[in-house]
Amino acid sequence: MRAVDIIVKKRDKGELTRDEINTFVTGFTRGDIPDYQVAAWAMAVLLNGMTPRETTDLTLAMAFSGQTLDLSGVVDIAVDKHSSGGVGDKTTLVVLPVTAACGLPVGKMSGRGLGFSGGTLDKMESIPGYRCDLTTDEFKTQLKEKGIVLTGQTLDLAPADGKLYALRDVTGTVQSLPLIAASIMSKKIAAGAQAIVLDVKTGNGAFMATLEQARELAGLMKLIGELAGREVVTLLSDMNQPLGFAVGNALEVVEAIETLQGGGPGDFREHCLHVAAQMLVLGRVVQDEAAARSLAGQAIADGRAFQQFRVLVEAQGGDVSYVDTPQKLPRAEFVQMVEAPRSGYLSQIEARAFGEMAVVLGAGRARKGDPIDHAVGLVIHHKVGDRVEKGDPLLTIHANDQEKLEEVLPVLLGAIKWSEQAPPRLPLFYE
Amino acid sequence: MRAVDIIVKKRDKGELTRDEINTFVTGFTRGDIPDYQVAAWAMAVLLNGMTPRETTDLTLAMAFSGQTLDLSGVVDIAVDKHSSGGVGDKTTLVVLPVTAACGLPVGKMSGRGLGFSGGTLDKMESIPGYRCDLTTDEFKTQLKEKGIVLTGQTLDLAPADGKLYALRDVTGTVQSLPLIAASIMSKKIAAGAQAIVLDVKTGNGAFMATLEQARELAGLMKLIGELAGREVVTLLSDMNQPLGFAVGNALEVVEAIETLQGGGPGDFREHCLHVAAQMLVLGRVVQDEAAARSLAGQAIADGRAFQQFRVLVEAQGGDVSYVDTPQKLPRAEFVQMVEAPRSGYLSQIEARAFGEMAVVLGAGRARKGDPIDHAVGLVIHHKVGDRVEKGDPLLTIHANDQEKLEEVLPVLLGAIKWSEQAPPRLPLFYE
Repeated sequence: MRAVDIIVKKRDKGELTRDEINTFVTGFTRGDIPDYQVAAWAMAVLLNGMTPRETTDLTLAMAFSGQTLDLSGVVDIAVDKHSSGGVGDKTTLVVLPVTAACGLPVGKMSGRGLGFSGGTLDKMESIPGYRCDLTTDEFKTQLKEKGIVLTGQTLDLAPADGKLYALRDVTGTVQSLPLIAASIMSKKIAAGAQAIVLDVKTGNGAFMATLEQARELAGLMKLIGELAGREVVTLLSDMNQPLGFAVGNALEVVEAIETLQGGGPGDFREHCLHVAAQMLVLGRVVQDEAAARSLAGQAIADGRAFQQFRVLVEAQGGDVSYVDTPQKLPRAEFVQMVEAPRSGYLSQIEARAFGEMAVVLGAGRARKGDPIDHAVGLVIHHKVGDRVEKGDPLLTIHANDQEKLEEVLPVLLGAIKWSEQAPPRLPLFYE
Repeated sequence: MRAVDIIVKKRDKGELTRDEINTFVTGFTRGDIPDYQVAAWAMAVLLNGMTPRETTDLTLAMAFSGQTLDLSGVVDIAVDKHSSGGVGDKTTLVVLPVTAACGLPVGKMSGRGLGFSGGTLDKMESIPGYRCDLTTDEFKTQLKEKGIVLTGQTLDLAPADGKLYALRDVTGTVQSLPLIAASIMSKKIAAGAQAIVLDVKTGNGAFMATLEQARELAGLMKLIGELAGREVVTLLSDMNQPLGFAVGNALEVVEAIETLQGGGPGDFREHCLHVAAQMLVLGRVVQDEAAARSLAGQAIADGRAFQQFRVLVEAQGGDVSYVDTPQKLPRAEFVQMVEAPRSGYLSQIEARAFGEMAVVLGAGRARKGDPIDHAVGLVIHHKVGDRVEKGDPLLTIHANDQEKLEEVLPVLLGAIKWSEQAPPRLPLFYE
């Protein structure tokens, strides 16, 4: 079976067999199939699509292209979560401590930010000393002993996905639902997940701009999960405005800590409780969602969730005094509060513009490997639907460069739309 | 302008600007744009197409990606011909001497055989000493002094086409009409052609299997020629049965010599006269096709065309005694005449099977760079529509390996179909 024949079959809208997909992924991973053949194949997949069966075979081939994590001796059931990425999405920082506090041990491998979307690891590294490079042995030991792990993906998991993603990034083949779904699911399966909560975000601050696309991606990943023998719950959540108020690494850690202590923005708290509840049900901690919500709420109320966050930070080498005294976290030199230029209702707060301006300030990366500034970012003090009076605090910009501050200010003001009548509030979840 | 943005534009069915195409071709030629980006782009072009304007810009960008041949001081009008490739297509060996004998100097760069399709250079190299590697200076000098040149493409012409073709070959992106048309036309333009006769072959022994595809390719190349300021005449010719009787290098040289001496198969002679006539009209030697046909016929009849072939062979270092005594040309060890197994009319002689079996015998290459055997090949003694009696000579196999001879025999017999009633003869040209 030659690589070019597999490319031609997909080019001609054929359905690839499991053998063909395995041959292609194995060859690519080993370096026997060169990048240019994979690039042509990826473009053919993007333009001609893949059936759910093909996508599942691709997912499994990539999942088993390197080492896999077997958590069967470590936890009763390995529950994982994944967010498709957005602006101000610090959910993992709250959900993991909450579920751990409720008796469901969770070990998660997260990613870094790229483009307008922030990354969980970048946020955690705002805390001095926090390590995101645990070895597989460290991962297992910590999960067994502490019941909570939050680290980066170790290099030997799903290497085919890493190689393919890097290639897709430079060949215009990122925006393919089968390739996106296979990428996400292969990493989760390689990391040992038996049950997964998938939070697919939709809106102008998400990779899936329309609800239809998000629904299709969610459905595809659920189907892959079923075909691959994994339990999958999918959520479709809104990303038309930032989640919570804060966008930026240390700023989001502060907001997560506030939420773990019972405060924080209402939308973000609600979002976290919902995700945590799904995980608790999947993990067989409780029977139904209502009981799970109540359990998660209690874990926050009585301080156990916050305590779990301290355990996590300490276990991974972080200086826990920064958790206890978040004022110690990196703080930007220029902090400018911007007042509302008018009175009215907020009808739109474009999440993507906030994400992009956070990158301009230095909170994110335009390119892989770029350094980031943990201190900088944005805080928007209201949500869509709020009534704001002229002169009220509207947003606060945290910058380490006065010029950049002045660059982002008009863009942010332009990304906020007003109306005279109260607009409908945005839903947290669509389905 | 980033390469990935150009890929994405074509992926999304956009029309690339001349600047974008120039940037892409220049970047690829220089090595600034890596193979994997070009491969993804080529697949997007194959699946989403290109407008004639885009294809023309691509053609010109590739034509001027390296050195170009300027024949303005060498000939009054540079007329070239191109065949899209077929089985038994030794047309150039006859047409060049004929046009040269009629007073139209012609310098042509030809290619080698690949797959079932033979190559002009391989045929000429059956003649010991014949050089296909003339330098540009040698090309010009010989064209000026002798009025006839037939050599290989020098390396510095249209390098972008060479690189792109090699990549298309291994990424399933050969079968794209815009890329095929741009490849052919860029080489012709780089080689200095001002007027071109394009012989697009169609049928089971051609790259364009259907008349519709062939017509589309011909139309596209004519349009490119017009947009690029070149005169183009397109012919659509049949390739459902081999052209002439002989398939194989030395065997075809013998057939070409016979034709130049006034003999040879009727279909092949007619084909050559038609192509030569088009060139003579394009070259302003005569006003109309009828006069051109008559002139070409005379050049064969009075021996001037054959004399020009001798001039060509001698000029390029070939041993002209092989032209005068074709029996000296390489001859296979096993020559087996196969008798007709039945009586009836020949209704089909599948050209592709003959081409493929010639490759099996060693007359062609499965892969670029494979060695070839000039002696071996096939001679079919009849054309579709002929009445043949059981026991009549049907075909002759020339092999240097008894096993291969026995391998090809049943395939060839299976590729010949019979009927009780006289079937219609195949046309030489469709339009």
